[in-house]
Amino acid sequence: MQDEIRNSDYKYRVEVCFVPGQYPLYAADMGIVVVIDILRATSAMVAAFEHGVDRIIPVGTIEEARQYIGRAGYIAAAERDGQVVEGFSYGNSPLAYVDQDLRGQTIVMTTTNGTKAINLAKGAKKVVIGSFLNLTALSDWLVSQNENVLLLCSGWKDKFNLEDSVFAGALMERLIASGKFGVEEDSSIAAKYMYMSARDNFMSILKAAPRRRRIEQLKLLPDAKYCLTPDQSTVIPILREGELVRM
Amino acid sequence: MQDEIRNSDYKYRVEVCFVPGQYPLYAADMGIVVVIDILRATSAMVAAFEHGVDRIIPVGTIEEARQYIGRAGYIAAAERDGQVVEGFSYGNSPLAYVDQDLRGQTIVMTTTNGTKAINLAKGAKKVVIGSFLNLTALSDWLVSQNENVLLLCSGWKDKFNLEDSVFAGALMERLIASGKFGVEEDSSIAAKYMYMSARDNFMSILKAAPRRRRIEQLKLLPDAKYCLTPDQSTVIPILREGELVRM
Repeated sequence: MQDEIRNSDYKYRVEVCFVPGQYPLYAADMGIVVVIDILRATSAMVAAFEHGVDRIIPVGTIEEARQYIGRAGYIAAAERDGQVVEGFSYGNSPLAYVDQDLRGQTIVMTTTNGTKAINLAKGAKKVVIGSFLNLTALSDWLVSQNENVLLLCSGWKDKFNLEDSVFAGALMERLIASGKFGVEEDSSIAAKYMYMSARDNFMSILKAAPRRRRIEQLKLLPDAKYCLTPDQSTVIPILREGELVRM
Repeated sequence: MQDEIRNSDYKYRVEVCFVPGQYPLYAADMGIVVVIDILRATSAMVAAFEHGVDRIIPVGTIEEARQYIGRAGYIAAAERDGQVVEGFSYGNSPLAYVDQDLRGQTIVMTTTNGTKAINLAKGAKKVVIGSFLNLTALSDWLVSQNENVLLLCSGWKDKFNLEDSVFAGALMERLIASGKFGVEEDSSIAAKYMYMSARDNFMSILKAAPRRRRIEQLKLLPDAKYCLTPDQSTVIPILREGELVRM
């Protein structure tokens, strides 16, 4: 923890909330909430917009998503425990949306963690979607706004999650570098140190043995590589009346 | 995240829970819970035992602690928001127990975070108290046991806390080094990286600007230095029938 966070003269705060369950403790005075679910919901959302979809409706239950199966103009997507739910053709894999023309389509999506976090943050002034895919576009936009920013990690089944927190650290670092932002929370300082440990190679996040095992079991390695590659898109999905649209 | 956690052949798990609110998500199959509140409850508890107290009764409310004010053989201690509660002579400062002969005394203590976490963990098979003060003694004892170990950080008002997590990383590292322990949770991996960033100088935890401000405001610097100095005691407080005693 050699290089201190120097932020005594900042105008706005950027803070990190590690798990959805702690959101109420961090939400006060936050104008913008960035929802983060790197593996894989928010990465898939950015990929889908990048490949043409018009809007994404995040829903809480499989039943809600199921009503859209087979409806013209809709793609129903449901993931639980890292896998596509039975009866659905789409889960939360971003690669499912690549190499397709999705113009005019609406995705109705429910996932284990990400869509839950989006629905939790609904009450905030602005809710946007973050991922490595749109890191630079998103950080430039956040710097251009005059709001406190909360980086809300979706976690894994309500628990702390490494890749979401490392990404939060990466995004936070850019906001602090702008000179406009500072941090107050210990979680934000910790995210910075996690990011510093991983920044030379984001794939290293997957190296820790237990994580690699899960990713191999679920055959997620191609997805994981895609989700950890920065700046593949300039799209910033934003929540408007319960639906995600291109900003 | 260069040096991977190698733990494929471990027999027991050591995991880190960052906040009390997440305890139910991490408690399954954990034989021993180590409660951690570095600044300052668990540091003060170890210091008090080191200086002779017989037992410490952790209580949840100020009212419970207040009943013991002035009673012979009892020291009533209450801290809220980092300060001694009005009417009490003791809060959670470990330095209050140094340079005193406390033999035969019982402390009844309530604090913002630490005593809450102890009461939360009550149902576990064994609950012990961790701090930098008893780091080596505690890690040696944990290695000698044949149980999964959960490191429960008390946090700050239900939020993530840096010094508790760094200490959890330090303790975890020793258990892993024994060859008997491995980790599965992302929170444990993150704690390791936080510890690695701080291990050359634990006082550096306090360097991050917002923390230093709070510690200076509360005039906690002498306490903080004491609480971050490893191996001042070989006492391991353990919970027996709701009371902490020397093991």
